[in-house]
Amino acid sequence: MGDVNIGVKLTLPVQKPEKAILVISDGIGDRPVSVLNGKTPLEAAMKPTLDTLAAKGATGLLHVLSPGIPPGSDTGHLSLFGYDARDCYTGRGPFEALGAGLDLEPTDIAFRGNFASAILTKDENFEVVDRRAGRHLPEGAELAKLINGLKVPSFPKVRVIVDHTVEHRCVLVLRGAGLSSSISDTDPHGHSNFVLSSMPLDETPEAEKTAQIVNTVTREFYRILKDSPINAKRKKAGLPEANIVLLRGAGILPEIPSLKDIYEISTACVAGGALYKGVARSVGMDILTVQGATASYDTDVEAKAKAAAKALKTHDYVFLHFKPTDSAAHDKDPKKKIAMIEKFDHLVKTLIELIDMDHTHIAITADHTTATTNGQHTGDPVPLLMVGPTVRNDDVLEFSERACAKGGLGQILGMAVMPMLMSALDRSPMFGA
Amino acid sequence: MGDVNIGVKLTLPVQKPEKAILVISDGIGDRPVSVLNGKTPLEAAMKPTLDTLAAKGATGLLHVLSPGIPPGSDTGHLSLFGYDARDCYTGRGPFEALGAGLDLEPTDIAFRGNFASAILTKDENFEVVDRRAGRHLPEGAELAKLINGLKVPSFPKVRVIVDHTVEHRCVLVLRGAGLSSSISDTDPHGHSNFVLSSMPLDETPEAEKTAQIVNTVTREFYRILKDSPINAKRKKAGLPEANIVLLRGAGILPEIPSLKDIYEISTACVAGGALYKGVARSVGMDILTVQGATASYDTDVEAKAKAAAKALKTHDYVFLHFKPTDSAAHDKDPKKKIAMIEKFDHLVKTLIELIDMDHTHIAITADHTTATTNGQHTGDPVPLLMVGPTVRNDDVLEFSERACAKGGLGQILGMAVMPMLMSALDRSPMFGA
Repeated sequence: MGDVNIGVKLTLPVQKPEKAILVISDGIGDRPVSVLNGKTPLEAAMKPTLDTLAAKGATGLLHVLSPGIPPGSDTGHLSLFGYDARDCYTGRGPFEALGAGLDLEPTDIAFRGNFASAILTKDENFEVVDRRAGRHLPEGAELAKLINGLKVPSFPKVRVIVDHTVEHRCVLVLRGAGLSSSISDTDPHGHSNFVLSSMPLDETPEAEKTAQIVNTVTREFYRILKDSPINAKRKKAGLPEANIVLLRGAGILPEIPSLKDIYEISTACVAGGALYKGVARSVGMDILTVQGATASYDTDVEAKAKAAAKALKTHDYVFLHFKPTDSAAHDKDPKKKIAMIEKFDHLVKTLIELIDMDHTHIAITADHTTATTNGQHTGDPVPLLMVGPTVRNDDVLEFSERACAKGGLGQILGMAVMPMLMSALDRSPMFGA
Repeated sequence: MGDVNIGVKLTLPVQKPEKAILVISDGIGDRPVSVLNGKTPLEAAMKPTLDTLAAKGATGLLHVLSPGIPPGSDTGHLSLFGYDARDCYTGRGPFEALGAGLDLEPTDIAFRGNFASAILTKDENFEVVDRRAGRHLPEGAELAKLINGLKVPSFPKVRVIVDHTVEHRCVLVLRGAGLSSSISDTDPHGHSNFVLSSMPLDETPEAEKTAQIVNTVTREFYRILKDSPINAKRKKAGLPEANIVLLRGAGILPEIPSLKDIYEISTACVAGGALYKGVARSVGMDILTVQGATASYDTDVEAKAKAAAKALKTHDYVFLHFKPTDSAAHDKDPKKKIAMIEKFDHLVKTLIELIDMDHTHIAITADHTTATTNGQHTGDPVPLLMVGPTVRNDDVLEFSERACAKGGLGQILGMAVMPMLMSALDRSPMFGA
């Protein structure tokens, strides 16, 4: 103790961050890539800001769900927001619907939909010829209007709500009493060439009824869309007709307390993609609109960083999402992923120049590993980095999968990130007395 | 292997400890402290014994409940004794009552109480003027006698038991059929200036009834205490009157098997504070009385070490608790905390000089981090150290938060400590065959 003099009454500086920001680079974790001489894209990238923060802070590895389980984008984010996805998750649909701006009632069954091209075979099956109707679909909103509000024969009390999001993507909501999300997809997911019949996944009359409705609306949507002037025009132009809707991810909105209910904090989301906004909305975040936040390779990272820094002035917690690292991995393009990691590094650089690092706790991680070697989400853990006034820093100098494996945060579960952030802000409720 | 000759029949020495001791330095974990140049008090302290044991043993970090969740003192100790606090904990009251020496029946509702000073306002509220009635309260036992055994108007079958512990602290037990612990505190905990009305926390008639009883006894206690000769004398002497009892932590005794039931071991507790004795009693430990074990800064660590060493001769497992590290952190006094860590080091030094290290497994850790930077329990993990004949030692040379983060025990949950100790003694029951 010799050289520490605190004999005179000192006012200790406040050593507590007042704000927290969770920065997600979607799918940033990866596996060793042979064309990178066995390095991961994160190890191969130039990322001076992330490495500097790693040197200042503490690192670890995050098993977003649990070791070896590949998380979905929805369950991955639910976990990062502190929820037990295994308890509360029913399907992707409601998050897509919330992200599209729809409001959901507690009994609504929501689906993610794809406008697709199909032909009706002689034996009355729909053969899929393009799962995304060419992907570029500027008439998406008009097509959605044509089928929105459809009356379902035999189920007059069920409301059918369809909304377009981006490209070929849309959402379907079935509203009415006595419905169930326990039914299978009509989307064949590339495993079959034919639109599937939705089947009840349990023996309740609700599941039976809902599957029947889904199969009915699928046929009715086809009937309406195939003869629409829009598709006549697309056919003439040599474009794939958008004449059917493939449905997947049936779910009801999880009944979970908001982050405000749990931690008494104000929260905001800066993201481009509808799904991320939807998960954020489901836990009560304010969804900020940022010009140029496209969730695509061209997304404007400076605009996003500025929006997040601004949001930190009015909110206790901000969630900032960056998508392109995941997209590059899904495209199995390690070179592109490296470029996107470097773009992410620039996002973080812009961010930390704008915020008060002495009063902010930053967590940087991912919702899952997306391996460029197979283009899929995998169960490998993701690197985690925390910087802030309460952090016991470690001696890791680099933000990467292998470096963070030696970090002082150890290996923890995704669900722990939110309580850890809140503990740093003295907002994690004590259990016990 | 060259010089090891086991060709002739050798009897290998027994490499199994016969005894285990859990040594808790309450709240010893901390955060980086700026006046300590970013070190934690544990890093800044001179603690040669702890460091020597770290060098001999294996270390790690303990998430006492789970990452980011600040444990209470009660839930923290329940976890360290191997119990899942989330399953069995209902409130602090029963542990305080057991620690005070009361016997509890399974349906009793027990509360921690503070003798406090209040004034009755014109609109019939109690305004708290001193939450601890001056803290020094030598008349505590006499005051408790005045209200012990109170008959509650409208609830003649409910027994009211009040007992004093130390300073301003007391316990209340409500005994009778049809009561519930699912009610809120009357203690405003400093968030309000007024004694709160206890409210039912669920919709059962039992909770409704118990809240009503609590509010009635609160008023009756005031009626009795305000006119007592003791308070007249205190008033005359210029001391705050102890005229009300603030109640918190309503709970029923958890229905848990004792450590003897689970591991077939004899267990003993050496602690000063009532709460720690109470948790130890709830899991079946023998509570030893040690002259000079005050749970205050002046506690006699040599007496405690001697008592623990002696208890190890008659018991398989001893729990030794040291409180002052926590108190100094609650007082936001890093210098005092360093001094108390150094006192704890002396306790451990005395202990290991008295015990047979070849036949004892020692675990040293804490029930939670108490940060001197904010004076609160936080969700940061605590260092863990194990020494004994079965331990696979690591190369960590120091007992501190950052050093133990690199230890061979990794990062584990508080609930794991007890099975690990018992496994070292070959007393952890195998699961499976």
